Amino acid sequence: MSFLPRLPLPWTSLTICSKSPRSRVAKGRKMSFHYNAIGSIRSPFREKFGVPRQSLMMDEARAIVKLNPDPGYALALSELEQFSHIWIIFDFHKNGNGRWHPLIDTPRVEAGQRMGVFATRSPHRPNALGMSAVKLERIDLDAPGGIEIHLNGVDLLDGTPVLDIKPYVPYADCIPEANSGWIKTEIEKFSVGFAVECLQMIDEQAKREHPRLKLLIEQMLELDPRPTSQRRATPISDPASEGLRFAFRVMGLDVHWEIRKGTIFVFKVLLLE
Amino acid sequence: MSFLPRLPLPWTSLTICSKSPRSRVAKGRKMSFHYNAIGSIRSPFREKFGVPRQSLMMDEARAIVKLNPDPGYALALSELEQFSHIWIIFDFHKNGNGRWHPLIDTPRVEAGQRMGVFATRSPHRPNALGMSAVKLERIDLDAPGGIEIHLNGVDLLDGTPVLDIKPYVPYADCIPEANSGWIKTEIEKFSVGFAVECLQMIDEQAKREHPRLKLLIEQMLELDPRPTSQRRATPISDPASEGLRFAFRVMGLDVHWEIRKGTIFVFKVLLLE
Repeated sequence: MSFLPRLPLPWTSLTICSKSPRSRVAKGRKMSFHYNAIGSIRSPFREKFGVPRQSLMMDEARAIVKLNPDPGYALALSELEQFSHIWIIFDFHKNGNGRWHPLIDTPRVEAGQRMGVFATRSPHRPNALGMSAVKLERIDLDAPGGIEIHLNGVDLLDGTPVLDIKPYVPYADCIPEANSGWIKTEIEKFSVGFAVECLQMIDEQAKREHPRLKLLIEQMLELDPRPTSQRRATPISDPASEGLRFAFRVMGLDVHWEIRKGTIFVFKVLLLE
Repeated sequence: MSFLPRLPLPWTSLTICSKSPRSRVAKGRKMSFHYNAIGSIRSPFREKFGVPRQSLMMDEARAIVKLNPDPGYALALSELEQFSHIWIIFDFHKNGNGRWHPLIDTPRVEAGQRMGVFATRSPHRPNALGMSAVKLERIDLDAPGGIEIHLNGVDLLDGTPVLDIKPYVPYADCIPEANSGWIKTEIEKFSVGFAVECLQMIDEQAKREHPRLKLLIEQMLELDPRPTSQRRATPISDPASEGLRFAFRVMGLDVHWEIRKGTIFVFKVLLLE
């Protein structure tokens, strides 16, 4: 906006460009940007395979953003707790050799049908930037060793460097009319069963680790946490998968499960250490 | 997941951490990350003051991501056009001296009530990273000088360096139950009037620049594009604002408007150059 005589306050010009915007951007200009982590994630997920891709469907998946010491961060978090959800902007620090791939073998589409990396949320992008909307539980300004932001519904790996935190703003971020492109919106959930002695083990461990440990295990299993290649080669609903066995470790337990008639059955639970 | 004898395919261990996650993150570890722009924005907005904060409400605000030349980018965009909306991750390249501020004087709240920068979308953050959900119009792979991604509903400044493009995925990104924290969700819109001769000028210019130029001007004006300090000091609905005059330039026109009885009236339009 240009100043007009009657304008009593400082004002800034707003110019809306005309005809040929192209000339203003140097062709192929390479610009480089440098950011420092403000903190990092502490999460139950240590390996990228098996991390739920449907973070918000796993409301037992909790994590913490542990902020680095900085005299300004406590103030910078003022009023953030008013929001129910926040964005975590992070670096995909475990995307292998750091190279990016133009085409990606994505989960939940036909084998051989690869997607452009910009049409996916894959870590193997030109800039390994990730973003994830999560539920904000609470902020602990006085936690020993640094501020902690407690999150829920998290798909972030333990140790993930955090670059930014922003409030989730429904009017800008929630677009109900957006389509889902190639992404299947109906997520198949499988039924999960437990042997009686397994339930007892989990119940015991829940007292020490996490009150809703059984629910967390169920939420992890019902989405079939195996990598894409496995899910494609041996779908749970396929009779040929009958009896296939797997195991994962969660909160001090080694959980063994097998595929039984299109469902997931936990047949053995061992206490680690 | 650990290997079990009957598992026929390569598999990766999934470890869920136990009791004391704190010890694994070095206190205050500073990690540094480096990203290169993949392209930059060409938008009608050249100055940060006046850029609409409600980008998706301004569907006449169009822009282009002009990608830098890279042999992989055309492939990397495969299937992106299936999505109606995408995220643009960018650097706030015009955030002044690059310093961040823990507390921010935000628009649309009481004067003097400052917010922590992490509770805002302000550019003055420890890492000047921005993200914006926009409507994807089309992708022009053969545009002279580099691929163009045409967008709609944009609040991005001309020249903004783009770091990443991601599909908008409703099941992960749209959280209708999220609250809006301190952010007012009812955006006040003002009625906009035009002098007859102004309408004629705009109509003429529309033939050369943009068919719905009048709508664009209306959308800019009805949200009161003045900066926070101005809006607070002289609200449009306040009788004391009667007759205050402003002007901005848009697509070759210099648009002059004044406040008349709580509405915005365009009383003069000049052709630039």
